[in-house]
Amino acid sequence: MERLIAGAMSGTSADGVDVALVAISGRGVDMTTRDVGFYHNAYSADLRATIFNLRAGKPVPLAELARCTRDVSLAYSTAVKRALASGGVDASDVAAVAAHGQTMFHAPPDTMQIFDPALLAAEVGCAVVSDFRRADCAAGGQGAPLVPFADYVLFRHPTRSRVLINIGGIANLTFLPAGGSIDDVVAFDTGPGNCISDDLVRRHDPGDLYDLNGLGAANGYPIGEAVDGVLSHPYFAAAPPKSTDGPAMNDIFFQATKQYLGRGFLDDLLATACVITARSIARALPPADEVFVSGGGVYNQTLMAKLADEGIRPRPIEEARADAHPAFKEAVAFALLGAATLDGLPSNVPSATGARRRVVLGSITPKP
Amino acid sequence: MERLIAGAMSGTSADGVDVALVAISGRGVDMTTRDVGFYHNAYSADLRATIFNLRAGKPVPLAELARCTRDVSLAYSTAVKRALASGGVDASDVAAVAAHGQTMFHAPPDTMQIFDPALLAAEVGCAVVSDFRRADCAAGGQGAPLVPFADYVLFRHPTRSRVLINIGGIANLTFLPAGGSIDDVVAFDTGPGNCISDDLVRRHDPGDLYDLNGLGAANGYPIGEAVDGVLSHPYFAAAPPKSTDGPAMNDIFFQATKQYLGRGFLDDLLATACVITARSIARALPPADEVFVSGGGVYNQTLMAKLADEGIRPRPIEEARADAHPAFKEAVAFALLGAATLDGLPSNVPSATGARRRVVLGSITPKP
Repeated sequence: MERLIAGAMSGTSADGVDVALVAISGRGVDMTTRDVGFYHNAYSADLRATIFNLRAGKPVPLAELARCTRDVSLAYSTAVKRALASGGVDASDVAAVAAHGQTMFHAPPDTMQIFDPALLAAEVGCAVVSDFRRADCAAGGQGAPLVPFADYVLFRHPTRSRVLINIGGIANLTFLPAGGSIDDVVAFDTGPGNCISDDLVRRHDPGDLYDLNGLGAANGYPIGEAVDGVLSHPYFAAAPPKSTDGPAMNDIFFQATKQYLGRGFLDDLLATACVITARSIARALPPADEVFVSGGGVYNQTLMAKLADEGIRPRPIEEARADAHPAFKEAVAFALLGAATLDGLPSNVPSATGARRRVVLGSITPKP
Repeated sequence: MERLIAGAMSGTSADGVDVALVAISGRGVDMTTRDVGFYHNAYSADLRATIFNLRAGKPVPLAELARCTRDVSLAYSTAVKRALASGGVDASDVAAVAAHGQTMFHAPPDTMQIFDPALLAAEVGCAVVSDFRRADCAAGGQGAPLVPFADYVLFRHPTRSRVLINIGGIANLTFLPAGGSIDDVVAFDTGPGNCISDDLVRRHDPGDLYDLNGLGAANGYPIGEAVDGVLSHPYFAAAPPKSTDGPAMNDIFFQATKQYLGRGFLDDLLATACVITARSIARALPPADEVFVSGGGVYNQTLMAKLADEGIRPRPIEEARADAHPAFKEAVAFALLGAATLDGLPSNVPSATGARRRVVLGSITPKP
């Protein structure tokens, strides 16, 4: 039986909420999808600034954390309502919204996604599945990455091994051996995606969101010493399972480049960030028949060029599946995770997260 | 069909977790209960101190908030596991744990109960219902009080009007008109319960939990001016629905008694706190055929004497129902709230919380 799920995701880049409205048939790893619509609702500049402030490592007033939780949840509900409206879909036809929430803190076994599922449920008028990461942490896992379940469902191939790279704030990869089972999946965060570049741009001008098309980086010269300094951090040599977060990666970069920051070398630092992202992905890449890429990073042409310099020319994710959308892959993934939870089926991938066992993820907030 | 629910509650006094293991039959307001066991697991002195520190109004490091969330959740799971063990009950026979979590912040429409339901679910091995307050807030309510639903289920009487006073950290009352419907229930927080007294004792000696039996207060003389100063705060004159929190009440007391604090008048301040609690309850009390009292405050003999001075001689809650337990009334209430959520039935009382409508409360975290 086909049911409609709205997957809603806001990543570590805190640019806004991606919603994928997906009709899902089947159960577990045999689910199939039919895309109904996509919608992106950008966070207001204020909310984005608040999120970055709250997770900058300084102590946080609880009243401000509560208010930010409310604002994030309202941004989710606006995004979902617009996605429904643009798809011509009534909330009563939606089985659930599967919402990731906004990560405020991620240091396994502790992880914190702020979100008010009851507010979303009341605003949209349907059930909500949320707080997906905790159950994996409770089973001894990192609580991340969770997208590999959907990667396996949607992108596995019987005779070709595949690597899927996703470059958001953080970059991660999923390796799907040819004809493998879900227990054969290898997936982990390779390190920074766009988070360092975004952070540099934002420090330079708080109104800027990112280095558009990588134009700044294209004008700069990478600082080899800084690249080596960052990549010598133990995170990059560590064996998976491993996961990280934007603030952690930005801090490593900041420590390695203190002497260059604030001295007018913005384009050089942006170029440096691209090389770090490209090289950390390249070093982590297992051999595979096909390599695909998705996430906002695909629009950073300098980053794509640096990946090519490292010998990696990933194909757009649309070449793996015609219906895949590079910017909404994670939102679709959360729709699938939500469907699994509604079905009472596990959806973590222990080989990716390090969990002791497969568990049902998330909490279900009923339609009010 | 009878199902076993473990109601688990930790109040604003942050003394620990109360667990009531309750067999529940029927649905909605026609539920009936059979008590299987009670268990109290005291928080460690460290955890208690951390909770008071985190909600003292100062900014909070998110890592510390996450760690405290974990420690609270583990204290809940220890409490539930011991309750099950002492009742000879296997986790597989429990339909769900209904857990309140630890309130860190309550300023409607924002409210924050820290809790990791997935960790409790993993530790105990059963489903969890949690985060009960948000849905009421999302419906325009205060998210509190929630116990009136259970008061109506368990204590309503066809021919006698009843008031139930509960004195925890905060004091609240529920008025149940004779033969009334759930929409006739009036309930609100009257103001401080033991929170001011607890705070005074803790400031004096951080190792102390409370004024045992009210002995300190019995030795003191209430400061009339301070009583009047506190009771002139607009909260006490405000019409219901209204709800408050320990830190807010302690702050009102602190503002009204600054000139006396730290000057060796501890017993006088404790006596003052008792009069404030007693008089604020007395002034709020609607006329009723029967008045009952529960909560930790019943063990404060000076507080009970001050209530008598105000003309109120409440009967112990056990006289309303032989199976009622003064210290576990709220834990039983959360078991009933959890059962309603599992049944997909609403359990807020809009006349008590101010919500626009009755809604299903809480989120359900599946058995992992």
